[in-house]
Amino acid sequence: MAIPSPITPPPIPPTTQLRIDLADRGYDILIGCGLLDHADAVACGAASSEALIVTNTTVAPLYAERLRRVLAGHHARVHAIALPDGEAHKDWDTLNLIFDRLLGEAFDRKTVLYALGGGVIGDMTGFAAACYMRGVACVQVPTTLLAQVDSSVGGKTAINHPAGKNMIGAFHQPLRVIADLDTLDTLPDREISAGLAEVIKYGPIADDDFLGWIEQHIDALRARDKVALAYAVRRSCEIKAWVVGQDEREAGLRAILNFGHTFGHAIEAGLGFGTWLHGEAVGCGMVMAADLSVRCGLIDAAYATRIARLIERAGLPIRGPHLGAARYLELMRVDKKSESGQIRFVLIDAPGQASLHPADDALVAEVIEAHSV
Amino acid sequence: MAIPSPITPPPIPPTTQLRIDLADRGYDILIGCGLLDHADAVACGAASSEALIVTNTTVAPLYAERLRRVLAGHHARVHAIALPDGEAHKDWDTLNLIFDRLLGEAFDRKTVLYALGGGVIGDMTGFAAACYMRGVACVQVPTTLLAQVDSSVGGKTAINHPAGKNMIGAFHQPLRVIADLDTLDTLPDREISAGLAEVIKYGPIADDDFLGWIEQHIDALRARDKVALAYAVRRSCEIKAWVVGQDEREAGLRAILNFGHTFGHAIEAGLGFGTWLHGEAVGCGMVMAADLSVRCGLIDAAYATRIARLIERAGLPIRGPHLGAARYLELMRVDKKSESGQIRFVLIDAPGQASLHPADDALVAEVIEAHSV
Repeated sequence: MAIPSPITPPPIPPTTQLRIDLADRGYDILIGCGLLDHADAVACGAASSEALIVTNTTVAPLYAERLRRVLAGHHARVHAIALPDGEAHKDWDTLNLIFDRLLGEAFDRKTVLYALGGGVIGDMTGFAAACYMRGVACVQVPTTLLAQVDSSVGGKTAINHPAGKNMIGAFHQPLRVIADLDTLDTLPDREISAGLAEVIKYGPIADDDFLGWIEQHIDALRARDKVALAYAVRRSCEIKAWVVGQDEREAGLRAILNFGHTFGHAIEAGLGFGTWLHGEAVGCGMVMAADLSVRCGLIDAAYATRIARLIERAGLPIRGPHLGAARYLELMRVDKKSESGQIRFVLIDAPGQASLHPADDALVAEVIEAHSV
Repeated sequence: MAIPSPITPPPIPPTTQLRIDLADRGYDILIGCGLLDHADAVACGAASSEALIVTNTTVAPLYAERLRRVLAGHHARVHAIALPDGEAHKDWDTLNLIFDRLLGEAFDRKTVLYALGGGVIGDMTGFAAACYMRGVACVQVPTTLLAQVDSSVGGKTAINHPAGKNMIGAFHQPLRVIADLDTLDTLPDREISAGLAEVIKYGPIADDDFLGWIEQHIDALRARDKVALAYAVRRSCEIKAWVVGQDEREAGLRAILNFGHTFGHAIEAGLGFGTWLHGEAVGCGMVMAADLSVRCGLIDAAYATRIARLIERAGLPIRGPHLGAARYLELMRVDKKSESGQIRFVLIDAPGQASLHPADDALVAEVIEAHSV
């Protein structure tokens, strides 16, 4: 779908700097335009250290050389590796290509990995950094909206297992996150929509005013209005930083960031990773989770409808694939939030507030049947 | 080699309890006889949690059922998985068998993994625990001398990569270490010798008196005298706990525990993992590292000869395989202690004292030529 750009280009917003507050593992998130050309924004770690840019075959021709050039003045050696693109490749075999390269170049413990790409690249590079020689440094350079508003921040890294999404991974905080808004210019429309799912998420779980703002600006966001995108990325990262700062390892609060993800992960695993984009599955999953919140008597139906309407306006699917409720339930039972076989869902308690709840299988099945094709 | 047991069985030493002091990750090491039959010694974690015993096909018929029985009263479900035995299987494919089982049983984040076996099982189970759902608990139940005196303590976990030993892993401290000395009764002589390599290691790096004690008791240790073994395990764990308590993530001091390991890892990787036992490679590696210490002018030749003589008396090889010095150097350059292509060796500074040193390739090559077949 081609959406016309606004006729007058918006003024370029200044760089925003946010802090993830985590004692000895705290770090900055930089959000702005043109950051990729500034070594002082991007380069991290010991100046004598070596660097490996991990990217994919789609992003490499767009930004890898620019990043390599800007890092060349800082690191002793800068190499790049382009992995195959897509969620279907977020697996051990692809991860191992990173290890093969690091070991082939005899890269040492001081090496810095730069994750240049979307959520898949960020998750795999972060996990490779967590495991290589039991841990090296990593810088996140997210180039998709989804990665800029969510996955690059907070230190969750993982690969998929055929039985479940993100089942094998580590908490490994980056040294810095650099969200260059200009990289969103090259993103396909489908990826913009997928990223908006994670933006919308922050409204019902943490900030009802933000939900209202997104409703007002959804068309501008889809049209890539830089001012609107800059605010959406900043507010999303602020909320994420606030949550992660209180609960780095998801002992409790952090789970709310998984609103829509329990249903969404089942869609992704059930269809085979990569069939739907992660953001698409989360969008549809939020429709289901909102309806489940209604059926559990937590919110009124109008709020769930409001969320579903916004998700639809973001260009996201609001009906899940037909896998059968039994298959959804089977896939959701291996969710990381499950305990003793009991699935737990992030449900909306009130506008802008969410928490974990168990739910009867029968009720969940009703929701799935009501919202799948 | 069959060594006769002592005619009068020694008195069974009481259980020793040591503490690894690591703020919120501290834990106990229990050393004693018959511990495997005591639920209060072995069972850890939430009582409602599920448990997976990870062992290998050699150890499973000996101890898995006993451990399962003692855990059954504590955990909701107790399953066991027997992996193929040996260093050659310390790889991703074998690790993935653990994940397949955990996900197949829908084991959740509260699951406790019990590592029942030697160093390979301990390393793989610990790494699986570090990564499963981004981290679950693990209890180490070492059944080899090597694992009891070294690898089960301190939280280093890893798998091998064809290019290098333990290159992919994590620091993941266990909930407890249970060293049941009775399990050493079923160990092949070759494995006792391999374990003694890591016992001997503690002398030159940290405790010259202990080196003297080992020299006096080497025959009793090889004959599996329980009193001697109990002291060797305890003193080894005391030294390891002291080192790890000061430097959990090997920023400095902890590297001394790798005495002999740089040469040793090259032997293991060069021959193919599993050809030599890890302890055999470390034994021979210590002979080389001691000689390198002499050639660097740090200690006199008599001390290196004393170490080599003890390693030989432990039943360990003191000459490395013929790989050629160039191949040794190539393999050692990907060692985790290397920096910017410069290999760093743990060398003896004085009896009972060691630290990291760079060394000229030419000097290292001389050492390799002098001590390989």
